[in-house]
Amino acid sequence: MTELAAVKAALKTQAVETPSWAYGNSGTRFKVFAQQGVPRDPWEKLDDAGKVHEFTGVAPTVALHIPWDKVEGSDGYAELAKHAQERGVKLGAINSNTFQDDDYKLGSICHPDATVRRKAVDHLLECVDIMDATGSRDLKLWFADGTNYPGQDDIRERQDRLAEGLAEVYARLGDDQRMLLEYKFFEPAFYSTDVPDWGTAYAHCLKLGPKAQVVVDTGHHAPGTNIEFIVATLLREGKLGAFDFNSRFYADDDLMVGAADPFQLFRIMYEVVRGGGFTPEVAFMLDQCHNIEAKIPAIIRSVMNVQEATAKALLVDRGALAVAQRDGDVLEANAVVMDAYNTDVRPLLREVREEMGLDADPMGAYRRSGWASKIVEERVGGDQAGWGA
Amino acid sequence: MTELAAVKAALKTQAVETPSWAYGNSGTRFKVFAQQGVPRDPWEKLDDAGKVHEFTGVAPTVALHIPWDKVEGSDGYAELAKHAQERGVKLGAINSNTFQDDDYKLGSICHPDATVRRKAVDHLLECVDIMDATGSRDLKLWFADGTNYPGQDDIRERQDRLAEGLAEVYARLGDDQRMLLEYKFFEPAFYSTDVPDWGTAYAHCLKLGPKAQVVVDTGHHAPGTNIEFIVATLLREGKLGAFDFNSRFYADDDLMVGAADPFQLFRIMYEVVRGGGFTPEVAFMLDQCHNIEAKIPAIIRSVMNVQEATAKALLVDRGALAVAQRDGDVLEANAVVMDAYNTDVRPLLREVREEMGLDADPMGAYRRSGWASKIVEERVGGDQAGWGA
Amino acid sequence: MTELAAVKAALKTQAVETPSWAYGNSGTRFKVFAQQGVPRDPWEKLDDAGKVHEFTGVAPTVALHIPWDKVEGSDGYAELAKHAQERGVKLGAINSNTFQDDDYKLGSICHPDATVRRKAVDHLLECVDIMDATGSRDLKLWFADGTNYPGQDDIRERQDRLAEGLAEVYARLGDDQRMLLEYKFFEPAFYSTDVPDWGTAYAHCLKLGPKAQVVVDTGHHAPGTNIEFIVATLLREGKLGAFDFNSRFYADDDLMVGAADPFQLFRIMYEVVRGGGFTPEVAFMLDQCHNIEAKIPAIIRSVMNVQEATAKALLVDRGALAVAQRDGDVLEANAVVMDAYNTDVRPLLREVREEMGLDADPMGAYRRSGWASKIVEERVGGDQAGWGA
Amino acid sequence: MTELAAVKAALKTQAVETPSWAYGNSGTRFKVFAQQGVPRDPWEKLDDAGKVHEFTGVAPTVALHIPWDKVEGSDGYAELAKHAQERGVKLGAINSNTFQDDDYKLGSICHPDATVRRKAVDHLLECVDIMDATGSRDLKLWFADGTNYPGQDDIRERQDRLAEGLAEVYARLGDDQRMLLEYKFFEPAFYSTDVPDWGTAYAHCLKLGPKAQVVVDTGHHAPGTNIEFIVATLLREGKLGAFDFNSRFYADDDLMVGAADPFQLFRIMYEVVRGGGFTPEVAFMLDQCHNIEAKIPAIIRSVMNVQEATAKALLVDRGALAVAQRDGDVLEANAVVMDAYNTDVRPLLREVREEMGLDADPMGAYRRSGWASKIVEERVGGDQAGWGA
Repeated sequence: MTELAAVKAALKTQAVETPSWAYGNSGTRFKVFAQQGVPRDPWEKLDDAGKVHEFTGVAPTVALHIPWDKVEGSDGYAELAKHAQERGVKLGAINSNTFQDDDYKLGSICHPDATVRRKAVDHLLECVDIMDATGSRDLKLWFADGTNYPGQDDIRERQDRLAEGLAEVYARLGDDQRMLLEYKFFEPAFYSTDVPDWGTAYAHCLKLGPKAQVVVDTGHHAPGTNIEFIVATLLREGKLGAFDFNSRFYADDDLMVGAADPFQLFRIMYEVVRGGGFTPEVAFMLDQCHNIEAKIPAIIRSVMNVQEATAKALLVDRGALAVAQRDGDVLEANAVVMDAYNTDVRPLLREVREEMGLDADPMGAYRRSGWASKIVEERVGGDQAGWGA
Repeated sequence: MTELAAVKAALKTQAVETPSWAYGNSGTRFKVFAQQGVPRDPWEKLDDAGKVHEFTGVAPTVALHIPWDKVEGSDGYAELAKHAQERGVKLGAINSNTFQDDDYKLGSICHPDATVRRKAVDHLLECVDIMDATGSRDLKLWFADGTNYPGQDDIRERQDRLAEGLAEVYARLGDDQRMLLEYKFFEPAFYSTDVPDWGTAYAHCLKLGPKAQVVVDTGHHAPGTNIEFIVATLLREGKLGAFDFNSRFYADDDLMVGAADPFQLFRIMYEVVRGGGFTPEVAFMLDQCHNIEAKIPAIIRSVMNVQEATAKALLVDRGALAVAQRDGDVLEANAVVMDAYNTDVRPLLREVREEMGLDADPMGAYRRSGWASKIVEERVGGDQAGWGA
Repeated sequence: MTELAAVKAALKTQAVETPSWAYGNSGTRFKVFAQQGVPRDPWEKLDDAGKVHEFTGVAPTVALHIPWDKVEGSDGYAELAKHAQERGVKLGAINSNTFQDDDYKLGSICHPDATVRRKAVDHLLECVDIMDATGSRDLKLWFADGTNYPGQDDIRERQDRLAEGLAEVYARLGDDQRMLLEYKFFEPAFYSTDVPDWGTAYAHCLKLGPKAQVVVDTGHHAPGTNIEFIVATLLREGKLGAFDFNSRFYADDDLMVGAADPFQLFRIMYEVVRGGGFTPEVAFMLDQCHNIEAKIPAIIRSVMNVQEATAKALLVDRGALAVAQRDGDVLEANAVVMDAYNTDVRPLLREVREEMGLDADPMGAYRRSGWASKIVEERVGGDQAGWGA
Repeated sequence: MTELAAVKAALKTQAVETPSWAYGNSGTRFKVFAQQGVPRDPWEKLDDAGKVHEFTGVAPTVALHIPWDKVEGSDGYAELAKHAQERGVKLGAINSNTFQDDDYKLGSICHPDATVRRKAVDHLLECVDIMDATGSRDLKLWFADGTNYPGQDDIRERQDRLAEGLAEVYARLGDDQRMLLEYKFFEPAFYSTDVPDWGTAYAHCLKLGPKAQVVVDTGHHAPGTNIEFIVATLLREGKLGAFDFNSRFYADDDLMVGAADPFQLFRIMYEVVRGGGFTPEVAFMLDQCHNIEAKIPAIIRSVMNVQEATAKALLVDRGALAVAQRDGDVLEANAVVMDAYNTDVRPLLREVREEMGLDADPMGAYRRSGWASKIVEERVGGDQAGWGA
């Protein structure tokens, strides 16, 4: 197989999980602008996710968020899985939510009150039950826990509580299940956050065991953080479980991945490829908001942005790079990397899509499909899904 | 008058305007945690604001937010002003809102569509009408306008539209009315913001004329920004119109002023005092959220934090400082400033309060007043005020 | 002329000024690593700059730094200009230096001591004398002035001193001469900087008059600052005089322009083009350090990076963009911009170079020229030029 | 013992190590401003350090930097230790230097070339030899290693090299010796840093074993980082070995500790006290530059700043705090902490000093001692110590 053929083959195996909540409404603390045609339940979210996979070919799974995507009945999740399958996709990671009940005002798993902690851990255990029903491998944990004011709570005891809660959930995991622990620099807590950085997530996962892995959300870092270094380090430690892709100019802006700094996305994907992370063991998920742009096309575009960054990462001439690095030729080594980055990979990806039996132009194909106007017409009445749905 | 007497006299003249919206519910994009006893209309907000002034003695005015505090009837605002007066306070600045209508998804005064711009400007003109009715001096303008993605709109044309809209509103101002233009680094827009920094606000105010002044919101700057430098510069230019006080560790966290970096607040107040800004020409307002803490006590505490920083700023030995600065004695000059900062001014402020006929301990006095339990009991039913109310 | 022909024609007019000091040694506070073949005087720097222009065709001028590039004799600068001309380049902006004398420990033009201020202003006036001799149009002013500790000096009085000093220098400028005022977020001062942001530079330039213009150094901003917004704003105000190009991940890293965030450089160049700034009235200069990489190739690479960003900016389909912006089609407007950015413009630039009679590959041509080994052999002995030379 | 007596007793046991290099000259990349009276060798540095301890009573040890403080002869370090002892101080941690040789342009222990790595590790082993001679417990390791450009080197292989080098040094440590690994966000490397955050340092120390501990340099974090959280976490993990104190507004500004954000220093010291870190197992060191201020008084002032923050941390009413935290009373919990912070502890510290037989006013006592003028007179000729000395 030629090198280019290998690159194409790799690109055809790519899988980017889309999040059910990105199909619903979202916004800032100032305002949620509703859009027309937005899904009103998990079934409709899966319909939309099916379209994204239909036109991109590399978005085969959909992450659920509990309780937003909770379904009733003893066969509820089996039905949901079947519904997904009929649309060409599968159910993916289960995402917990311990931040939207009034009880969680001062935290969930780290809350000073044991009653609230119990409730939070019970919710997580319920999520594992749902994983059993959906066949999901991954439980993705993001905690909004933290404090707003110095002294508000004991930041060290909160770590003890966190460790205790996580251990209980870890013990409940099945053999083929994993716990993915996400860290976040700040928000919604503004003074201290209980899992603020990769080091904290890593330290907890290390103690929990091999089924606990770290999630890198590309928007969850301090200004200036070298994210690809963290990716390389976690891969070296065998502790990189997943990505939550999105992009940011300032805080956790949750813009489309690759929109703010496409060069950074490329560097991240290069470290993934170089570190052996381009495998199913690392889950590549989107975690974005589409506050003002049309949601489905934004997700298609995001999937394509990940593809483009991956293609460029795969095109880096690693032999030439190794030589330049060994020789200490700073400019040449940088040039090898930039040469791949500056390549326009869109023609290559059009070829890849055509070889996969897809339209070369996913955005155009979606536009021409009429789905957008169909859902606007049909999804009338009911409550649109949203972050608070 | 001794120097300490002069400090006390100055402290007795202090006036910190509290914002009507801080008495209502607020939160992050993830969740608004409702509190018990929260006001359900502007009348009840004024009741609470009256309590803050009753116990602090230095919070004599209340900023309104339109349409959140809109009242009906031809005498509506006169009634509201009377209601305020009966509680010992007055109506203060009028704050516009051009970010919570669906029309404003892509901006208000900078929107690409002239119809939306017209609507936004009409709202601002209506705010001036309200000022006429309330007798307010200041129209405070904060625009959520901006873009989320490169290319989304023409960032330069948006400036032209902004200038045009501001000019129309400026022309409508009465002789004793002012326009206060606020800048903000980011949020809710995530790529470009139309008034992102003091330079932009200053440039617009300069062209508009003397009735246009800049507002410094202490939470609206890039990481590391030296805010007191901006204060000193705007005072030098005669363009500092007001403060929106709050504090931040990360973004626009809107925590209680002085909670995150009391030393910075002191340095800001020092430049205010040194630059001749401790006058009614500069409006000192709070603009905060109390997402998880009790609201009225949080506002009392915030007012006290401003008082403490002001007291320390007034205590700086400016004669000694000038000598050390002239001599280039870096350590001594710094020591003079730190000496004031390290002073515990709480005993002094207790004296000031007692001399003003107040309880020396506003937090305790409020607690003992029973107001907190009274409003929890009485304010049952109805819709609590909140950012979206 | 077709659109592509117009793009090519524009690219052929491009002019990027290279800085004499980038040919010398530089480093961090920890260590300056000397390189072989580094120039030992301004004459050799011009020799190197001639090579950069010879192979790129778009680096026709060289900025001087006084006193680093001071030459003796009544005809010194005329000789230097002749030397440059023989190498195909011209002398460009004169850069002042008021930060490397022991007198400047606490500042230069803002120093509390009038004697030091006099010395600083005299140096600036001398720089204008040199401009008369070199025929330079631009005096570029960067001040290291600021303070390290709160209280160290009066930050407002420092503005008065700054204004006074600048006014004296401004009055000395000839009819065709300009003063370019640079701002910088921080460093070497760590608490306050006397010209820390574009607003401060703009306010001073406004008062000075039309010959005073602002310089945007791309590395001199707070984290997260939207630089292209500043560019658009300064162009709108008629106050953008020049760029100092370089790139940064953290602080004022002074890496090769385009190395850290090529997308940002493209966005900046787009606002330049869109705002009518792609003219000789705006000086495009590099201001970089090459601490660990080979200097001449690094400068060639930097010039090419600016070219590539410019080419992409010129390729934006402004008609399609205007339509999408007018329609509020966020995704399409962004797509138009990204389409230009994702284009591989290297083939186009190779054509441009060939049409200009140059080698299509400047890096290769320089490498093959043997200049690098020639200067290593010949430049033995003497003192290498460096920041402190 | 009353509570206040316990606080005083604790304060009397405090020990802040001063760094030999802070007595010498330092500066920025732009300029090192020399001061009069600066030591010319390690012996004179110890003389100055002796004065700091003489007047503060809590600076009993002095960190050495190799090779800056290298002494010759078989008994060199024994002599040096004796010299120190005669001045009332002891030799403290040994600090390595692998950043000022030309060989280290592309790194030291992470360099792509094994020869350079060998040289770096040999230097570290030599430092352990010196520890044997001085009786020092701690080897403090800070690596300037990193890269300036994407692609310049393989960031993951650099971790492998780092691990290998550290392991060799670790193996060489004696039973009572420790290795302290410092992390730093950036500088002098500008794209990637090989030990950029506490997570990386922690991961390496964990694998090395119990004698490897993490150093928290208060100036080495991304903007907005909650340092006290890191302190609490490392203490919880048993991996906090030491502090390098200094303060910053922007980058690694190396200003006097407590000068930029005294509230942050207090919060850090509170977590130290609360987490059981106020013991000899955690080394409290200064690591600062005094570029423009007088050095010895700046160090005295810094020691006092640490003392004041410690005193306030010790004064926190932990019983009341625990109650408020348990009750979820955000404002009261914050108030308990602020109450300690707002206390003026200077009278208490004056008492502590007097009870220790010291002058209550260390700054004044030093000034009156005449040492400053004595060293200016006597230290004439020779080469002043500096970062490059």
